[in-house]
Amino acid sequence: MAYRETEKVRNRKAATREQVLQCALVLVAQSGFSGIQMTQLAKQAKLATGTLYRYFPSKESLFAEVFKRATEIEVARVERALQQTSGEAPDRIEEALRVFARRALKAPNLAWALIAEPVQAEVDQQRLEYRMRYARLFADAIQQGIDEGSLPLQRSMLSSTAMVGAIAEALIGPLAKVSREMMVPANQQQIIDDILRFCIHGILCSAERRQGAPL
Amino acid sequence: MAYRETEKVRNRKAATREQVLQCALVLVAQSGFSGIQMTQLAKQAKLATGTLYRYFPSKESLFAEVFKRATEIEVARVERALQQTSGEAPDRIEEALRVFARRALKAPNLAWALIAEPVQAEVDQQRLEYRMRYARLFADAIQQGIDEGSLPLQRSMLSSTAMVGAIAEALIGPLAKVSREMMVPANQQQIIDDILRFCIHGILCSAERRQGAPL
Repeated sequence: MAYRETEKVRNRKAATREQVLQCALVLVAQSGFSGIQMTQLAKQAKLATGTLYRYFPSKESLFAEVFKRATEIEVARVERALQQTSGEAPDRIEEALRVFARRALKAPNLAWALIAEPVQAEVDQQRLEYRMRYARLFADAIQQGIDEGSLPLQRSMLSSTAMVGAIAEALIGPLAKVSREMMVPANQQQIIDDILRFCIHGILCSAERRQGAPL
Repeated sequence: MAYRETEKVRNRKAATREQVLQCALVLVAQSGFSGIQMTQLAKQAKLATGTLYRYFPSKESLFAEVFKRATEIEVARVERALQQTSGEAPDRIEEALRVFARRALKAPNLAWALIAEPVQAEVDQQRLEYRMRYARLFADAIQQGIDEGSLPLQRSMLSSTAMVGAIAEALIGPLAKVSREMMVPANQQQIIDDILRFCIHGILCSAERRQGAPL
């Protein structure tokens, strides 16, 4: 008779796997993906290193899962801000971008790891997919803005990807370690305001640009 | 007496290394980094695979060099457009962005590989550094615009990184293979115009955004 896992065994395995993931999330939030050593992680999860590899066959597969977990949380926050903010589309989009930027600057190591840290191709693939998830959320909101007349006609997906690229890239500098140590809260607020202004103008101003002096 | 390379030997080695790089560049332009197989590359460069590894100790080191080579060309084109376009800063920035986008859509496989293809961390590190190179070029132009009064006061580096992120991310969709096959030149022109409008409004409109209807 073939060996079949009892429910108890399955549950225990799932719990251990979850524990490994939670430990890894803590490590990433401290010092990025490069800060995860499998031996150290095993120790923290109270497992032998060999046992760890039974749950995650490679560092890449673990990293991809950690990336997914951490990013799902951020995507959910952005989605909630888009849904629950009152007002027209530009207000909702601005608030969602603000939530994204604030959370990033509040947990800069984690944000750096998710947005910019050079990682293995498997994790980079996840990054591409999540960028698309964000873009689709914002594209829906832009489309609603077009429909309700609060935003000018535009290709919502193109504007949305531009916006997601803009906020992510603009945050990379401020998230870098050196700047972080020097950054006071008032500056953070100013940085967020500047990034948001860039993004919101990008989707809000669709008329031909040159009418004499800058607006 | 220790063996010392003659100049002739050195030159021959440099020429072979260059030949490998050129072959790799052709392969990347055809099908991205994932399209480079070391055995195939060796064959094309008329070398034994083992010999290839004498010139590039690892696939990662070869990829990083290929990435650098290809990107240097693009950076130089953007730099030239910024320097040689006549007019004020917004015109020069717009033209440089247009050069970047046009070249990307004209060589979509190469552009995809340089901008978005999931790659090893070593190559991703290069990508981060080149994004910074682009950002510094545009930041200088934005600062010139502020100084000459053609652009409103803003943090030039923050606006610049946002702009670089916006154009790169917005191009990813259009560069994807499926869209590419369906894209006619007129659509390409429209896509470029839309991306540029987003970017230029981002740096041009610095006033508070809400004044009734969208602009």
